[in-house]
Amino acid sequence: MWKPDRKSNQPLYQQIADDLEQRISYGEFPPGSLLPSERKLADQLGVNRSTVVLAYAELRSLGIIESRSGSGTRVSRTKWGATPKHTPNWHRYAEGGNFLPNLPFLRRIRVALEQDPSIIDFASGELAGDLAPIDEINAIMNEKQNTSYWGYDNPQGYMPLRQALVSFLKEYRGIHTTESSILITSGSQQSLYLITQCLLSPGDAVAIEDPSYSYSLPMFQSAGLRLFRLPVDERGVQPEDIRSLFKKHKIKMMFINPNFQNPTGTLLAEERRKKLLDVASELGLPIVEDDPFSLTAYKGTPPSPLKSSDAIGSVLYIGSFSKIAASGLRVGWMVAPHSVVERLADARQQMDFGLSVVPQKVAATFLESPFFDPHMDRLRSTLLYKRDLIIEVIQKEMPDLVEYHIPDGGLHLWCKIVPEVNDTKLLDAAIQRGVIFVPGSVYGSDSSYVRLTFARARTEDIHTGISRFAEALRSTLEIEN
Amino acid sequence: MWKPDRKSNQPLYQQIADDLEQRISYGEFPPGSLLPSERKLADQLGVNRSTVVLAYAELRSLGIIESRSGSGTRVSRTKWGATPKHTPNWHRYAEGGNFLPNLPFLRRIRVALEQDPSIIDFASGELAGDLAPIDEINAIMNEKQNTSYWGYDNPQGYMPLRQALVSFLKEYRGIHTTESSILITSGSQQSLYLITQCLLSPGDAVAIEDPSYSYSLPMFQSAGLRLFRLPVDERGVQPEDIRSLFKKHKIKMMFINPNFQNPTGTLLAEERRKKLLDVASELGLPIVEDDPFSLTAYKGTPPSPLKSSDAIGSVLYIGSFSKIAASGLRVGWMVAPHSVVERLADARQQMDFGLSVVPQKVAATFLESPFFDPHMDRLRSTLLYKRDLIIEVIQKEMPDLVEYHIPDGGLHLWCKIVPEVNDTKLLDAAIQRGVIFVPGSVYGSDSSYVRLTFARARTEDIHTGISRFAEALRSTLEIEN
Ligand SMILES: Cc1ncc(COP(=O)(O)O)c(C=O)c1O
Ligand SMILES: Cc1ncc(COP(=O)(O)O)c(C=O)c1O
Repeated sequence: MWKPDRKSNQPLYQQIADDLEQRISYGEFPPGSLLPSERKLADQLGVNRSTVVLAYAELRSLGIIESRSGSGTRVSRTKWGATPKHTPNWHRYAEGGNFLPNLPFLRRIRVALEQDPSIIDFASGELAGDLAPIDEINAIMNEKQNTSYWGYDNPQGYMPLRQALVSFLKEYRGIHTTESSILITSGSQQSLYLITQCLLSPGDAVAIEDPSYSYSLPMFQSAGLRLFRLPVDERGVQPEDIRSLFKKHKIKMMFINPNFQNPTGTLLAEERRKKLLDVASELGLPIVEDDPFSLTAYKGTPPSPLKSSDAIGSVLYIGSFSKIAASGLRVGWMVAPHSVVERLADARQQMDFGLSVVPQKVAATFLESPFFDPHMDRLRSTLLYKRDLIIEVIQKEMPDLVEYHIPDGGLHLWCKIVPEVNDTKLLDAAIQRGVIFVPGSVYGSDSSYVRLTFARARTEDIHTGISRFAEALRSTLEIEN
Repeated sequence: MWKPDRKSNQPLYQQIADDLEQRISYGEFPPGSLLPSERKLADQLGVNRSTVVLAYAELRSLGIIESRSGSGTRVSRTKWGATPKHTPNWHRYAEGGNFLPNLPFLRRIRVALEQDPSIIDFASGELAGDLAPIDEINAIMNEKQNTSYWGYDNPQGYMPLRQALVSFLKEYRGIHTTESSILITSGSQQSLYLITQCLLSPGDAVAIEDPSYSYSLPMFQSAGLRLFRLPVDERGVQPEDIRSLFKKHKIKMMFINPNFQNPTGTLLAEERRKKLLDVASELGLPIVEDDPFSLTAYKGTPPSPLKSSDAIGSVLYIGSFSKIAASGLRVGWMVAPHSVVERLADARQQMDFGLSVVPQKVAATFLESPFFDPHMDRLRSTLLYKRDLIIEVIQKEMPDLVEYHIPDGGLHLWCKIVPEVNDTKLLDAAIQRGVIFVPGSVYGSDSSYVRLTFARARTEDIHTGISRFAEALRSTLEIEN
């Protein structure tokens, strides 16, 4: 985002007015559109509100913008010639469509991260720079490229990557599959999107965990699905709950993240897994298994996916590089029966023509390289170190204020705030102090939970981050009482 | 696709039975699902039908599959244990959802290209390997990488690419814009998808050119839009047609590809451009300008986009690397008012979390590199050479059978077949002879048109390709008469 230059001879308000005039003339803000409020723009640019007031006054005097009390400041329509011309009402278009906007908390978090890159980030569900295989990826990209063609590829995905995944899934996840059963997607996110858009119809009922990552996705509502919740206890969901939901609501599909669930970190208990597959096969119910975290298990053998025991083909399996390598690669995959893969690949040809070949090549090379195993070992032990660190600091800074189960894998610590707290206020207080997290209500929980991601922040920032959080929490509690 | 090994000691039918058994046990074909017909599988594997008959008999004798007359061959359900277990009816799920399948002709073409990579390809609308900047892209990828983080990025797109595009659009397209007004997409395809899904609502009326690429996209129907057509003559669409459509049907948006239109190659005439913008601003109607081809102009200054004369902000502008560099990169962009960009970036966070950073880095580097201008010069002169070549060969092989306008840019030659011909039969005859094209009906024309893409085939194959096409055409006409 552009910021005024404080060292320039030109006054700040004039720089801001000039920049706005240019943006308006270039079409970023078309005639009739609403400009940010004075306060908001001042925040964004890091200037006093009075500076923005002056800048707007300047533009108003030039006839470029108009302010009317109660309806904010808009780009002038009359400026643009005497004959009546009409810019499309873009604002109304932007409000149309089938797509629900993202949750306000998530938008708030995105803006805060953009505005202050130095904030300590316990919110983004991903790996820190030092956990991702940066050097390995750079080295792979630097290998001699001998690609002879960079054309449209099969929308199902780049064949060498599908082949590499067949071996990977067999060796690391106990899943036996074929190249024709794999669809490459832009992360697990796109797998979920394709399933909700192409295999389900508006009005269909689906079951999701409560709390769960899925709950943070308006995607389900955008597809017109009716959501029913399966409570997650410390051993995961209860298979019998599914049977009763099925009877009551004709559930058409169930979504589950059985290994180190986001946000709770829970591992679905062994006997519940068996039971779950039995119930699904009894009901003919498809299970979507979202499994991005299992290989992050800090110690020992990572838990097996449901898919590896799925004898009759009830499970659509989703995996991703995001949580074990680099989320910016945008490489994920789905394992599904041929008819499903064909359908989804066909639909994708209308959406985006499939994933770019470049990251698919990088991912295929990485999976088959000698870098992979050492990277995974380092990842798991560093995550363990960071988990222990965040817990140690929490015990020091606010032992009486939060409760949690200690996770054995994944990137997050799910905390219950013991005294009741308003999570909007807590988030504000935290952002003010330079730390950010995700309120539990985003995942469908009540407001006394927070998700603290310890994988993303730099190790050396974890202590400061938790101190700031503890301070924010104390001050929020004080004001409330 | 797996093929049986003719040099093996194992009989072909046995190899096929073993392969199928494995695919079935891995879940590619779940219990109850339909297997390919004997004839189709024989075609795919390049064996006699009797071989497949034997393979199926073998699997039947093992109880793995069942055939019932009239309903084809299915994977057995009973094999899978005594208790009644139910695999989800994946087939029914694959038929659900909002997404219409791609057009049968386009699926047919995709399958034919996959099955016979040596076929001469006048169908794929993209550049041949020797026209794309392969060496340049490889060289860029081999430059020292010093990326320090590969995490989730802004779903609006990688900032250095948006910055590079601001300069590119100013210098090459006469479009003045800002980084905040640019959205990076997975090719123009995803721009179109986002617009139809997020800015329009089911039931909305939109205007598209006739014929047009848009017509080949079930995307419009999947979004529930009502399509109205604007006939394209040799100078493009008639702006007055829009006014009357608007009055009759309350058109909410118009889609146009004014420069070297796909499929016709037409350039919208100068006076119609001005008129079109006037009509749009009079009606407050948004225009989506899809402009992938303008920089391919074989000679002289490429035509300007509508967007460069869009004083009041009626135009959403869409561009892409696909037709000027490499379609496999999947890098496209949209220039739009801020409120629209924000909305679409937000929606994308639910669909795919934005484009992979890797191809975006490659594209940004390429645009700003000294490779770009020489590449474009070479591209334009080679396209001119190929256009002249295909016309020369057509004049030699079938001067009396086809008519066309000579395009000054783009990748395609749009031909009218003079005697009436059935395009399904013509496509079959062509595929049999090892050449492939797109029937005009895909773009909404009547069946006497074909689109011959001369950019994709290797220069040395163009002569053979046209000879084969001429042969296919003659034989189809003969049978018909
Ligand atoms: C359970 C779960 N599924 C899917 C995703 C989407 O990740 P990606 O699309 O990067 O693979 C996430 C990311 O947080 C997640 O936690
Ligand atoms: C007019 C037009 N628009 C959009 C596209 C989609 O191309 P891409 O998504 O590769 O940019 C094409 C491809 O043929 C096209 O011809």
